[in-house]
Amino acid sequence: MDTREKAVEAKEASIRLAAIPGNVKNKALAEVAHALEQRQADILAANRADMEKAQSENLASPLLKRLKFDEGKIKEVCDGLHSLIGLPDPVGQTLSAVELDEGLELYRVSCPIGVIGIIFESRPDALVQISSLCLKSGDAVLMKGGSEAANTNHILADIISQASVDAGIPQGWLNLLEARSDVAEMLGMDEYIDLIVPRGSNEFVQHIMQNTNIPVLGHADGICHVYVDSHAEIDMAVKVTVDSKVQYVAVCNAVETLLVHQSIAEAFLPKAKEALEANGVELRGCARTTKVIDVKAATEDDWSTEYLDLILSVKVVDSLNEAIDHINRYGSGHTDVIVTADRSNGIKFMDYVNSAGVFMNCSSRFSDGFRYGLGAEVGISTNKIHARGPVGLEGLVIYKWRLMGSGQTVTEYSGDGGKTFTHQQLQKDFE
Amino acid sequence: MDTREKAVEAKEASIRLAAIPGNVKNKALAEVAHALEQRQADILAANRADMEKAQSENLASPLLKRLKFDEGKIKEVCDGLHSLIGLPDPVGQTLSAVELDEGLELYRVSCPIGVIGIIFESRPDALVQISSLCLKSGDAVLMKGGSEAANTNHILADIISQASVDAGIPQGWLNLLEARSDVAEMLGMDEYIDLIVPRGSNEFVQHIMQNTNIPVLGHADGICHVYVDSHAEIDMAVKVTVDSKVQYVAVCNAVETLLVHQSIAEAFLPKAKEALEANGVELRGCARTTKVIDVKAATEDDWSTEYLDLILSVKVVDSLNEAIDHINRYGSGHTDVIVTADRSNGIKFMDYVNSAGVFMNCSSRFSDGFRYGLGAEVGISTNKIHARGPVGLEGLVIYKWRLMGSGQTVTEYSGDGGKTFTHQQLQKDFE
Repeated sequence: MDTREKAVEAKEASIRLAAIPGNVKNKALAEVAHALEQRQADILAANRADMEKAQSENLASPLLKRLKFDEGKIKEVCDGLHSLIGLPDPVGQTLSAVELDEGLELYRVSCPIGVIGIIFESRPDALVQISSLCLKSGDAVLMKGGSEAANTNHILADIISQASVDAGIPQGWLNLLEARSDVAEMLGMDEYIDLIVPRGSNEFVQHIMQNTNIPVLGHADGICHVYVDSHAEIDMAVKVTVDSKVQYVAVCNAVETLLVHQSIAEAFLPKAKEALEANGVELRGCARTTKVIDVKAATEDDWSTEYLDLILSVKVVDSLNEAIDHINRYGSGHTDVIVTADRSNGIKFMDYVNSAGVFMNCSSRFSDGFRYGLGAEVGISTNKIHARGPVGLEGLVIYKWRLMGSGQTVTEYSGDGGKTFTHQQLQKDFE
Repeated sequence: MDTREKAVEAKEASIRLAAIPGNVKNKALAEVAHALEQRQADILAANRADMEKAQSENLASPLLKRLKFDEGKIKEVCDGLHSLIGLPDPVGQTLSAVELDEGLELYRVSCPIGVIGIIFESRPDALVQISSLCLKSGDAVLMKGGSEAANTNHILADIISQASVDAGIPQGWLNLLEARSDVAEMLGMDEYIDLIVPRGSNEFVQHIMQNTNIPVLGHADGICHVYVDSHAEIDMAVKVTVDSKVQYVAVCNAVETLLVHQSIAEAFLPKAKEALEANGVELRGCARTTKVIDVKAATEDDWSTEYLDLILSVKVVDSLNEAIDHINRYGSGHTDVIVTADRSNGIKFMDYVNSAGVFMNCSSRFSDGFRYGLGAEVGISTNKIHARGPVGLEGLVIYKWRLMGSGQTVTEYSGDGGKTFTHQQLQKDFE
């Protein structure tokens, strides 16, 4: 099948998948987990082939690490499938119910979005996580994985597809795209694809966003901030800053800029410098920072740079308002943290900082679907509509308006003497 | 101010507007209503100038009717403002609350989207309705109205802006764009505008959707269907079909294609023909239709044409499945109706028809924000994400994730022996 045929098949499957009950989807997820365990030897062999090719091509060691899919990873994704089974079905939930008039009832009921196009990096576990989230949310998927993982992705997609179809999920709900040209073709298929979720580098996601009319859910930059308020506890501020920067440095929810209230700078900065440098972090400070601690000078560019590395820019600000303005100007709307013992300052920060995640007194690294309890995530969104922050099952559904009548016409409700609407909330679900 | 300066001002205002409490927004809406009544003479004079110019330019009479803004219209928009005041504040609602661990609480709380760019047709009442919905949802707006209504729009925007700012809403939350070139400029301002809502012709909306990277909420086509099932009551089917077609013919939720189950075609079609033709409707039938009733033949193009006129295409289908397939293939995902006395057929139709509105036994014309009880609507969306169908206050908000900690780091929750998350649902709101 070519890419278009796969997309047509996915679209057709999506219509039928939308009406598949939750217990069938859960049965299919259990069968997928079972099949992954049964076919472990084949999966490991396929992954060895990918790893050998990657090593022969001298792939960098972090990439090799992401590519590796061993017994531990198989166990992890199977555990993930079982927790997903335990989550409620996101489809068929009555979101609102209102009587428009006697015998005329309006229900807003959740339903799948349709066909999701996913473009993901080289981690094969992402294929399992994302496809299983889509299955549970009733969405068909077209997936394009990294070419380094071609063999592993191919066998994983085969196993998931076969096990789920055997359990009653419509054929064609999952299709793997394998050619590099498939990405460009996906971007033009707005007739068949309802949403694109790109995962990858900043440049890659920007490229996707600028080259399609299909809605894109994702994030390019992750320029996160920690703001240490005048009322911060110094030890907590140091601990939260260090964790936000170094716990996993190459990810979008790591902090890139530290903002410090001027009244606390002299007490806080030397301790922060010591702790950060002990973890190998290079600091780049504004003019006021370099008066307090001996660090390299920051330039204007530093405020809008996502280092993804052991580098942290530092700026001293005059006020909470200046910190908020700085974040709203230079940030990427991903996740921003205030450390303060003054709750009203914390709430003000959360009200005015225009980001998907606004945190008080904890690490920016908590911004993650698993930690949020969403099961897993298809990605993190810095969009301002539909879904923001870690996107789990809820971000993969939308709703239909279901109106149940008994022959009503709008003419009856029009003009002088027309009937009037009751608009009474109903305390019942659609069934 | 030029367009970019207005956009910058709107962006800045949007940050402050996001934190304005509901009672201040309601006070502002009341002041707007009061000011519109107070300034009635000025508004009527401005509208007379627009009407005279339009008449001298021989504008078509339906356009003149839309342009007219008289005492009745002023009363209508003021009534609308008062019902809007009565609706709950869509901002600050706790959508979910979960304890990640002791002292680490995650809240998903609704918040405004930010800056909405609205491009609307010549009806000046749309300016009042849309700007007041945005005010209540805490969104700043850049509005571009039809040039025919320039004087009326100008005075309305001035009155709304001044009355609301006097009541405590941030200056610049509403800016009117008045030059034709402003639309093109808006489409490029993804740095400042978070969502575009275009209202107008199919071609116009398509043009907007294809020429911006800003998310667009709206609909191009409105190709709605009524399907008369084998188990339909004939009289109800006739009544619903006639209302769906003729109650207001030039709107997106009017029906364009009638699908009829073959087993009921001979009984239903002659009665439908009689009632529709009595209302001036021209029928265009498929080959099987023309064997039952004497009407013009439909061509393939008819199935994908939005007539917005007294024309209805008619097709006889073999089954409910064929009707569903036809709608999913040719429809625009707006609103589709089944008439049936068999509830399970109705539910099947609602499950499989992939449209924003799926109705059983009532007119397609009910698809409307006022009739749904949403207060009013900024428009109707056929998007598959964020908001579908009539878009009221709920479609103008999104959420932030607010995480309240007491110094937690992700390091504590990592690796062997790390703390585990509790993920307990909390029965409380963020405050």
